[in-house]
Amino acid sequence: MSLLRFDPTTNDWVVFAPSRALRPHTIASQDKPGVVERPASCPFCPGNEELTPPEIRSLRQDRHDARSWLVRVVPNKFPALRIEETSRRAEEGRSFRSMGGCGAHEVVVESRDHAAVLAQQPVEQIERVLACVQERYQDLMRDERFQAVIIFKNHGEGAGTSLAHPHWQVIATPVVPRMLRLKNFEAIGFYDREGVNLYDMLLQDELAAGSRILATNDDFAALCPYASHSAFETWIMPRKRQASFAAVAPTALRALAEMLKIVLLKLHTALNNPDFNLTIDSAPRGEEDEPYFLWHLRILPRLATTAGFELGSGMAINTVLPEQARDFLSEAPVAHGDGR
Amino acid sequence: MSLLRFDPTTNDWVVFAPSRALRPHTIASQDKPGVVERPASCPFCPGNEELTPPEIRSLRQDRHDARSWLVRVVPNKFPALRIEETSRRAEEGRSFRSMGGCGAHEVVVESRDHAAVLAQQPVEQIERVLACVQERYQDLMRDERFQAVIIFKNHGEGAGTSLAHPHWQVIATPVVPRMLRLKNFEAIGFYDREGVNLYDMLLQDELAAGSRILATNDDFAALCPYASHSAFETWIMPRKRQASFAAVAPTALRALAEMLKIVLLKLHTALNNPDFNLTIDSAPRGEEDEPYFLWHLRILPRLATTAGFELGSGMAINTVLPEQARDFLSEAPVAHGDGR
Repeated sequence: MSLLRFDPTTNDWVVFAPSRALRPHTIASQDKPGVVERPASCPFCPGNEELTPPEIRSLRQDRHDARSWLVRVVPNKFPALRIEETSRRAEEGRSFRSMGGCGAHEVVVESRDHAAVLAQQPVEQIERVLACVQERYQDLMRDERFQAVIIFKNHGEGAGTSLAHPHWQVIATPVVPRMLRLKNFEAIGFYDREGVNLYDMLLQDELAAGSRILATNDDFAALCPYASHSAFETWIMPRKRQASFAAVAPTALRALAEMLKIVLLKLHTALNNPDFNLTIDSAPRGEEDEPYFLWHLRILPRLATTAGFELGSGMAINTVLPEQARDFLSEAPVAHGDGR
Repeated sequence: MSLLRFDPTTNDWVVFAPSRALRPHTIASQDKPGVVERPASCPFCPGNEELTPPEIRSLRQDRHDARSWLVRVVPNKFPALRIEETSRRAEEGRSFRSMGGCGAHEVVVESRDHAAVLAQQPVEQIERVLACVQERYQDLMRDERFQAVIIFKNHGEGAGTSLAHPHWQVIATPVVPRMLRLKNFEAIGFYDREGVNLYDMLLQDELAAGSRILATNDDFAALCPYASHSAFETWIMPRKRQASFAAVAPTALRALAEMLKIVLLKLHTALNNPDFNLTIDSAPRGEEDEPYFLWHLRILPRLATTAGFELGSGMAINTVLPEQARDFLSEAPVAHGDGR
């Protein structure tokens, strides 16, 4: 059972998922870097496929052999939102508005290897993961009850992961979440006032300044943005104007995988396999073809703990200037050999 | 050196405080609950007063003896913002806007006792802390360069504290921080549309519903709000309409101290001394006497780690319904005896 409740003080919905309190925190003590014992009970390990709900999709070595999966998508066993719930709204008086917890919550198992680190995977495997995530994004957006799809990955206990086996998650929501609504609102306002795509302008100005650019290829640029909210925050932005992640062409997915591998390897080497969150911000329903937004991928290393000032003010304190972060990451050796 | 940079994608300022990267993380391993060795080098312990910058204010046993302080206010040694900085704005092209890190960052040492827990302090001492915090709030708001003052306390390493000795912090900012701006904006809009103070309406409706009310006295109500963003989130709200924390009368501060002690003791007992953040949301400059806002105190236990979904969507996932949280906290025994 899950539901959403509306907070009129922040114009925001909160997801209530009481059953998620049962989630297993199987991560033992911090066995960094990466030498995690393969627990026999890991639901994401090969051979344990029956421990997950029925598979939604997989990319396989041999397409006739379900056991030969390379990337595997399953429903989250402890979902925040569920396809079976209604999206019916209810009101108790003026103050209390709720909504059924209608949505979807899927897990994309990123590798057969329990201890794999995405940065060290072959580009082909990273490309498979991105292709699979994109396909789930496209498929979920076909369901008109869903207003947005959030793609994310939590790496490490400090980033909130509850299962060590590397995976991504995809959540479809019945409302446009606050951050996406805010970003969209600001981008529309900027386009109205200036006649310019805000993200494209920022990207062009970052490329011209150069001091925060980490890497580029024909299709993408990686940078530590001018107003990074946290230390070593890194964005990957498309150089072609696309509001939705769904629009990335298959050939560009390969370039994205290459760029993501470079960025993750630099962070991995420079910061000693830091905990991080990765999210893809993409246009909500109805905005996919509009000229004002640009989807982007954000990597947020979790080097500091958010504290009372941030929670009270909503304002971030960052102790590392993005120019310094860029320089530090630039110097990190990237052994292109491993896994490629 | 600190500065602010503007993020046009979120219409938000980020504080850059590179010198804070030097902050000492003196907390050893988790020695909960509360049996912390008194480190000889703790700058907040009696006898070590010379380890802090010069005292701003103190409440003393003997007002002629500086060493007899009961609550002590000092500048933060690693400030996020500083009175000495300018608030001058600068632009580099269209994309990059910054501002000097003008503000203030003070520490209110809450007790002489390195291992004190606020919940277990006598009401008189909690009242002293609140009075001192309020005085600093009022004083900082006299400086017209400051648009808002954020009051907060971090309890425990999981809540981001870097010094174990119990303390509050007060930060004055040269802009209205995002969360306050948002809350104010929503409250104004509601008042315009409905002719009603949003917070007052919520409070009255919560009191009428009853199922989320934790405690009340003549001046205050404590509750787990209907759309709590995190598990066991608890608010203390004034029953008299006041937009600014500065307006709380000295007699009401005593009632606030009593209410805060009850709430903290319940959380302490029921959740075994959880890490938490405490913040006071108060009207920004120019809004102090307006009829649409109500200052409130929020306590946010840190029982879960914010992960990729929250960072990507801005939306919270809460695994505990506030009615359940209220019931669980209600059953916690509150030994009124200790310390009173």
